[in-house]
Amino acid sequence: MTSNLVVNAGRIAADIDALANITELDRPWTRRAFTPMFLRGRAYVEKVFREAGLETRIDAAGNLIGLRRGKTGGGTLMLGSHTDTVPNGGRFDGIAGVIAALEVARALDDAGIELEHDLEIVDFLAEEVSIFGVSCIGSRGMTGVRPSEWLERTADIEGKRVDLAEGIREVGGDPIQTGGRDDIKAFLELHIEQGTVLEREGIDIGIVGAITGISRFEILVEGRADHAGTTPMNARYDALGAASCLVLGIERIAKELALGSSYFAGTVGEFSMEPNAANVIPSHVRMLIDARAVDPALMDEFVAALSALCVQTAAKRKVTIAEPRRVSNAAPTPMSGMVTEILASSAARIGATSRPMVSGAGHDAAFLSKVAPAAMIFIASKDGRSHAAEEWSENDAITLGAAVLYEAVLDLDKR
Amino acid sequence: MTSNLVVNAGRIAADIDALANITELDRPWTRRAFTPMFLRGRAYVEKVFREAGLETRIDAAGNLIGLRRGKTGGGTLMLGSHTDTVPNGGRFDGIAGVIAALEVARALDDAGIELEHDLEIVDFLAEEVSIFGVSCIGSRGMTGVRPSEWLERTADIEGKRVDLAEGIREVGGDPIQTGGRDDIKAFLELHIEQGTVLEREGIDIGIVGAITGISRFEILVEGRADHAGTTPMNARYDALGAASCLVLGIERIAKELALGSSYFAGTVGEFSMEPNAANVIPSHVRMLIDARAVDPALMDEFVAALSALCVQTAAKRKVTIAEPRRVSNAAPTPMSGMVTEILASSAARIGATSRPMVSGAGHDAAFLSKVAPAAMIFIASKDGRSHAAEEWSENDAITLGAAVLYEAVLDLDKR
Repeated sequence: MTSNLVVNAGRIAADIDALANITELDRPWTRRAFTPMFLRGRAYVEKVFREAGLETRIDAAGNLIGLRRGKTGGGTLMLGSHTDTVPNGGRFDGIAGVIAALEVARALDDAGIELEHDLEIVDFLAEEVSIFGVSCIGSRGMTGVRPSEWLERTADIEGKRVDLAEGIREVGGDPIQTGGRDDIKAFLELHIEQGTVLEREGIDIGIVGAITGISRFEILVEGRADHAGTTPMNARYDALGAASCLVLGIERIAKELALGSSYFAGTVGEFSMEPNAANVIPSHVRMLIDARAVDPALMDEFVAALSALCVQTAAKRKVTIAEPRRVSNAAPTPMSGMVTEILASSAARIGATSRPMVSGAGHDAAFLSKVAPAAMIFIASKDGRSHAAEEWSENDAITLGAAVLYEAVLDLDKR
Repeated sequence: MTSNLVVNAGRIAADIDALANITELDRPWTRRAFTPMFLRGRAYVEKVFREAGLETRIDAAGNLIGLRRGKTGGGTLMLGSHTDTVPNGGRFDGIAGVIAALEVARALDDAGIELEHDLEIVDFLAEEVSIFGVSCIGSRGMTGVRPSEWLERTADIEGKRVDLAEGIREVGGDPIQTGGRDDIKAFLELHIEQGTVLEREGIDIGIVGAITGISRFEILVEGRADHAGTTPMNARYDALGAASCLVLGIERIAKELALGSSYFAGTVGEFSMEPNAANVIPSHVRMLIDARAVDPALMDEFVAALSALCVQTAAKRKVTIAEPRRVSNAAPTPMSGMVTEILASSAARIGATSRPMVSGAGHDAAFLSKVAPAAMIFIASKDGRSHAAEEWSENDAITLGAAVLYEAVLDLDKR
């Protein structure tokens, strides 16, 4: 499939394998940002950047950047993703995007192509939730939206307590500076899908039109903590029973909303109970719902259905359920229509099938979209697995994705 | 209602009030066994025992005993319950039984009655789950079934780490000795119902025919921890969804079994989930079921229905559910038919209504039944509340119960 492509599948596979070997041995694959293992991975990436003729530097936000200078400058085309992982993470999440971007630069060299624009390949710092408890530190820093109070967050590195400011300095950044990039003409990111849409439909490339909005809702159920032995079955106010009705009701609502043409996902991710004692009827349950939509109207529909469900369940089960409390609300991020069109036509040009998609997860591209036209492509994840050792994407799929990026860069460079 | 009774309602109310005032002030009503507050309560009980003419002693198991000597000896009639409480417990659980028993001795004195048998009024040590994590320490010790390894269990008392052996010595017992009571002709215990049966049916006295058996079952549900944002609603293996089906199914089965003529209760009291992270689909749930029955056939029926529910739910939800594991199994304890008949006829004699009942909770009487004919009576609990500050029983109801004990003692003394 990839034999006619200008990008080189062997080089991509070799780099991804080499990074996979740089892992905490007792929990593959782990290279958490700011740790010594992460810095070993970064050293490898910087080496291959240099071998590809890129000028390397660490920017103030702690991102590793490889620069391929253009003829005229006048704006930067930026490609990138991240090489940090979650604990026990996978070999491809983020990594595939950095190596595919690097391969674009190498393929341009192979073809003897000099671009008009500067081309930057970026390994963003700490896209995953880091040891400091926060994520997308590098892309937030580059785009000027990293909260300044984050610098005081602390974590242990090799037994030493450090704050994020010190962590950023350790990787070569400067926590005082932030933002300042007004030169980016376009940003492209390749990422694994972390879902099953492409695999099930047998489609090569997902053209990401938007990154989902995420709202979280807390629900508190209050029943009564009576004796499990002496309270008849028909005289109970069991918070767990009521909460179980809510869990199944939320699932039903989310499945119905997801049947429509626009993306929706709803998950009860946190669930805890009191008094949680073998011989006491549960009195309190707290649950946290993660709801994701690109269309704000769909999120509103979910909120209304959730409220109604709580009212009905409280009445039916004779317990108290407070109105769901929205504890966080991140708006959806549309990608650049100009860039997604270029990506779709680039895919068509090399014979790759593609379809529009929504990203259900957050990505560095969401922050880059605040300062530049940005878009993403997805390539298939085996069985949808991610953030797990089983995570897998075929090297041919990554290579095909790199070829789409290559075509898109040539197109963007002409504009 | 109680004005014609030989027992004295005012004395009962005064003693229960006095004990209620001996409480940790910041969390009424709390007198946990082995603590200084418990010993203050015990000192009060010993004082009123002595004032009633009883010879007081602490036995080897740590129980406070008030002896009223009979004419001929030849066996002991024993009445009692406990004065320790759970944290934030109630004013009546155990206490009502000790004070009602004491009132029987006082009423016998008032009536100038000398019994043939010795009469002992007992405040059993640590009926509630104690700071050492175990319960019914005094009644187990008296009947020779207190596990010897329990003596090594430790707890903090006033900032000092002590083991149970030392705890028993501190209250005046001798942890080396155990059992040895073969003189008990009958044991009677009055206790609050901790349920709503008597209240709803407007019946004065519950004649407890059996103390329930308790089995606990652990269920483990295993789904798959996928990304809450990128995994479509129809491609999930959500352990929480499956567990919610189980909770509602267990409730349905327990309600059906409880509709029959024999007692049954089933409760999911413990429930925990992994990874319990907002953005991850739950992969594992552990739950612990408390199931109570007097008829072993009913417990077998529950086990069979539970197994079938797990198989069906695993298939329907495409998750793994292990065969429920029985982690504990306490057999039901029948009370003495001879004693329950005497209690029922005693109630009838003084014009109190009564009905046969089952105790859904464990009690000291279950252990005494191992060495003597034993039985219990229940009096109504307001709204069924217990182990809570709201716990309430009317003083008239306790007084009527004391009068039933009085009649039963006279009857037993003649046999």
